[in-house]
Amino acid sequence: MSDPILVEVTRGPAVESVHRGAAIVTDGDGRVVWSIGEDRPVYPRSAIKALQALPLVESGAADRYAFGNAELALACSSHSGEARHAATSAGMLAKAGRDVATLECGAHWPSGAAATQELARSGGAPSALHNNCSGKHAGFVCLACANDIDPRGYVGIDHKVQRYVAEAVGEVTGHKLDAATAIGTDGCSIPTYAIPLSRLSHGFAKLATGHGVGPERAKAMARLRAACAAEPFMVAGTGRFCTRAMELFGPRVFVKTGAEGVFCAAFPDQGLGVAIKCNDGASRAAEVIMASLIRRFVPMSESEAAAFKALAEPSLVNWNGIVVGGLKPAGALLQ
Amino acid sequence: MSDPILVEVTRGPAVESVHRGAAIVTDGDGRVVWSIGEDRPVYPRSAIKALQALPLVESGAADRYAFGNAELALACSSHSGEARHAATSAGMLAKAGRDVATLECGAHWPSGAAATQELARSGGAPSALHNNCSGKHAGFVCLACANDIDPRGYVGIDHKVQRYVAEAVGEVTGHKLDAATAIGTDGCSIPTYAIPLSRLSHGFAKLATGHGVGPERAKAMARLRAACAAEPFMVAGTGRFCTRAMELFGPRVFVKTGAEGVFCAAFPDQGLGVAIKCNDGASRAAEVIMASLIRRFVPMSESEAAAFKALAEPSLVNWNGIVVGGLKPAGALLQ
Repeated sequence: MSDPILVEVTRGPAVESVHRGAAIVTDGDGRVVWSIGEDRPVYPRSAIKALQALPLVESGAADRYAFGNAELALACSSHSGEARHAATSAGMLAKAGRDVATLECGAHWPSGAAATQELARSGGAPSALHNNCSGKHAGFVCLACANDIDPRGYVGIDHKVQRYVAEAVGEVTGHKLDAATAIGTDGCSIPTYAIPLSRLSHGFAKLATGHGVGPERAKAMARLRAACAAEPFMVAGTGRFCTRAMELFGPRVFVKTGAEGVFCAAFPDQGLGVAIKCNDGASRAAEVIMASLIRRFVPMSESEAAAFKALAEPSLVNWNGIVVGGLKPAGALLQ
Repeated sequence: MSDPILVEVTRGPAVESVHRGAAIVTDGDGRVVWSIGEDRPVYPRSAIKALQALPLVESGAADRYAFGNAELALACSSHSGEARHAATSAGMLAKAGRDVATLECGAHWPSGAAATQELARSGGAPSALHNNCSGKHAGFVCLACANDIDPRGYVGIDHKVQRYVAEAVGEVTGHKLDAATAIGTDGCSIPTYAIPLSRLSHGFAKLATGHGVGPERAKAMARLRAACAAEPFMVAGTGRFCTRAMELFGPRVFVKTGAEGVFCAAFPDQGLGVAIKCNDGASRAAEVIMASLIRRFVPMSESEAAAFKALAEPSLVNWNGIVVGGLKPAGALLQ
């Protein structure tokens, strides 16, 4: 992994830290349009939640429970555990006649600092609803319940829910999940399968275009993208990159972060899919890489470009509000 | 910066992320005993707080205010903002007839998650006392007040306090701070000067041995090390690497982390100093690098080695308590 330096972190006149990584951009026919660094299998983690949500839609569960954009966007989310996120997860479960006790993702304090402070201030304690994956998991529970599957153990690799999910991800990415595929356990306890960056990128090009999948799947893909574009807050949370980028660009950009520096995107108007891995797992760098690819491939107005600068080249501000440095794409990423 | 991979992060059967970096180990005469990666200037950030605290002791301020181990350790700390940290900072200021209003580090929520939840639950709000640098800053204020210097503006590069601090750091590291030295602003608003890793490493070898400095300075160094060994909680906080390592090894190991993957140490019994930079700024990796150098250079009993494993090769545990992976030193670090 001798991938190039893609992001520099500056402080004063010097580069203080650097991040290496790889990124691949693919069109709907699977042609690599642009790439940097080495193609290899990576755990996609939460970056593929929109693909993992396909069975929820395709099975009819989303219709049975009359899910709107908020619920579908939350099913694709890594949310900050803010009040509306937790309440929407609870609402999804209630539609299936279930509650938080059915969730198997584990509890943690909200990943959003302000949400944690608010929860503690109100005397509350974190539940599985605050887990950043609770929307995805509520979707899994609903997928099971709508199809008369016992949801118990739904995080297990052999449970029908995970088999449907793995099948959808395998079909869309074109990566056969077999004995050679490294399988890890995700933070929320479901399996995560290592998939080559090029395959992930092609999967997101299919999400962007609907090419190479059947009409039902293409419809489900478009519906999930539209839901996230309509409810970007639900996909992440206040101030977060995914939320802010989709608020800014609407349906023209679908982006989804994953743990350990993975980031995926679909650019529907260009018919392109993107997969990124920052080698050291840093989200701050994966975001700058993603922003540079949005700048490269997605036409934007001057005012959009100006607004996007805060995400693309974020400043580092200290506790007294002084700008002490920033992040920026390195030369290799700009060529 | 083509430094080797020093730390691997695994998940299931695969390496998920990697961290590159450099490290230099030096003896009291400035001889490089062991090194990996490239020597170059880095911002030492909070890793040199023990050197920055020298003027507090050498000027007589610490004696004038009868500082004990807790206060001196806090002056060298990046603390988690737990109640005892904040109270000790306030106590240091009170001895100089000052209070939180004199601090110029800025306020932030405690860096320790449990401390933040506790503060919010009690209806409190963060002040500059909770800033992880408040002990160092209380020390700066006391240095000023004990020497009839107006503390106002003490974070400024031209203030007498910062001039004393820069002089001490320059002398101990042997790095002349001149026009060629990159100067950044730290999170707490004081200047941070870029110093070559080899010079930092030698500075910590002097801290370990007292070689190459005058008798008064050697005495101040030993006093600060002893204070941190006696009060390791004050140097970081509950569960933190610096605290746990010094609890385990006592005066045999002085370690101090800094932001952006810098980590320094003094091993007094071996007469060695250590300076580490993880290139991407990750603390999790700098800790594993430091642990591997402690293992290499500091003799330890079997029970100490067993207890140290949790810091040296930490497991990654998910929200359901399942071990999903871990961090470990890469081959280059073990050679």
